[in-house]
Amino acid sequence: MRASFARQQVMATLGITLRRLAPGEVDLEVPFQQALVQQHGFLHAGVLATMADSACGYAALTLMPADAGVLSIEFKINMMAPAKGERFTARAVVLRAGRNITVCEADVVAIGSGSEKVVARMLATMMTVRGRTGVEG
Amino acid sequence: MRASFARQQVMATLGITLRRLAPGEVDLEVPFQQALVQQHGFLHAGVLATMADSACGYAALTLMPADAGVLSIEFKINMMAPAKGERFTARAVVLRAGRNITVCEADVVAIGSGSEKVVARMLATMMTVRGRTGVEG
Amino acid sequence: MRASFARQQVMATLGITLRRLAPGEVDLEVPFQQALVQQHGFLHAGVLATMADSACGYAALTLMPADAGVLSIEFKINMMAPAKGERFTARAVVLRAGRNITVCEADVVAIGSGSEKVVARMLATMMTVRGRTGVEG
Amino acid sequence: MRASFARQQVMATLGITLRRLAPGEVDLEVPFQQALVQQHGFLHAGVLATMADSACGYAALTLMPADAGVLSIEFKINMMAPAKGERFTARAVVLRAGRNITVCEADVVAIGSGSEKVVARMLATMMTVRGRTGVEG
Repeated sequence: MRASFARQQVMATLGITLRRLAPGEVDLEVPFQQALVQQHGFLHAGVLATMADSACGYAALTLMPADAGVLSIEFKINMMAPAKGERFTARAVVLRAGRNITVCEADVVAIGSGSEKVVARMLATMMTVRGRTGVEG
Repeated sequence: MRASFARQQVMATLGITLRRLAPGEVDLEVPFQQALVQQHGFLHAGVLATMADSACGYAALTLMPADAGVLSIEFKINMMAPAKGERFTARAVVLRAGRNITVCEADVVAIGSGSEKVVARMLATMMTVRGRTGVEG
Repeated sequence: MRASFARQQVMATLGITLRRLAPGEVDLEVPFQQALVQQHGFLHAGVLATMADSACGYAALTLMPADAGVLSIEFKINMMAPAKGERFTARAVVLRAGRNITVCEADVVAIGSGSEKVVARMLATMMTVRGRTGVEG
Repeated sequence: MRASFARQQVMATLGITLRRLAPGEVDLEVPFQQALVQQHGFLHAGVLATMADSACGYAALTLMPADAGVLSIEFKINMMAPAKGERFTARAVVLRAGRNITVCEADVVAIGSGSEKVVARMLATMMTVRGRTGVEG
């Protein structure tokens, strides 16, 4: 799992790290960086989506067979507050793990000065991929 | 519009550039880069989402009053094929421009070796923001 | 609120009733009926969506000013299991109530033989409408 | 296909009929009825969703093997204008037909007095189901 995450080079590019890995649950984290802002100085919605999508994908992967890979079929994300904070955590949980399809949910939480605020929620659909060369993990 | 796009520092971080700007239509582009891949070597779904979301936001902004800003309320994106290619274009169009709410759609197209393939489609909801300090453009 | 619900004639057509109304929370219920099935004999996804959307809309309305109306901007629903059961409850909660935009979530739960199962989850965006004739409640 | 549609009893309950069936394309239609309105007298968003979801499902099914069934994994719908009109058509097209996953899009168009208006757009994910008893067609 960690080896697969390490191959997601976009995570290093954005400074996103894996914080917690449990069956059906994954947390990713990113510190606030000017390099990630949109035009109003908040974290770009696409960065929130990138974190939440990867957290959902790895949460799904924790419940899949060891030789399976995971692909994002689709996701939907609602931005609920401006993404202001010192750091941001995407917390994903599996809602339903099927043989082919896994449904996940993730919150992105902004953390700063002792307070936490949910700034986005994602509802995502992941697919289990087997025996397709180049799509392991 | 171009000044606002330039303030989206995440665009420079990811190498995404503004290619076309017309009333209700915006194209953004990114070359393939190892720095943006997921674990299977394709462009990460979050990068596709970041491009498509920004393209939708600026397409919406082209039809808003000059002093208004735009915020993403939510978006949904379906990944339709592995994001393999030499470069990728997000093409957004406004489907419906209302006073407060604008609905946009975007395709992300993978381009390479003389062929094009749609790899993702987004359906997004944008909000017009007026008179809120820090949210111009 | 109850008067507004009573004007939703599609609720009577489908046999959907209001079960619970609390600030930011609404439950709707429907008994299983052959009149509501899809081709495999399960409740049609559109019926699940109708219940969940109305539950979200009224949950949002409970937190809006008394003279405001509510409109669905968009919703997304994942079907997580076949909708088999004796009755079905849509349970909506407000995740974030803003001045113009309210984000809600709803589960549709199938109930039968002493067991409960979540068969669908919705993530929805509602809009507060003020001073627009014909759009009260 | 038509036999499968006839088993969707909710279609008869709502007065929705199959208007057009072509490879990868399906149109469904419903006349305006007081029995289908929400609290403001417009067609309920859930009815639009029911039509659009079924149109997407059957559009997907036209491109699947003859012995396969179709299930809705998820859909997202944006309401773009009040659903006022004499009749409403849901027009679905397949965007991408895969072995397991088919992505579809549908517009719901309000028709009246010689004019047409798109009132909703759906982006949906369908699954091919094989060899599962009770899920044919």
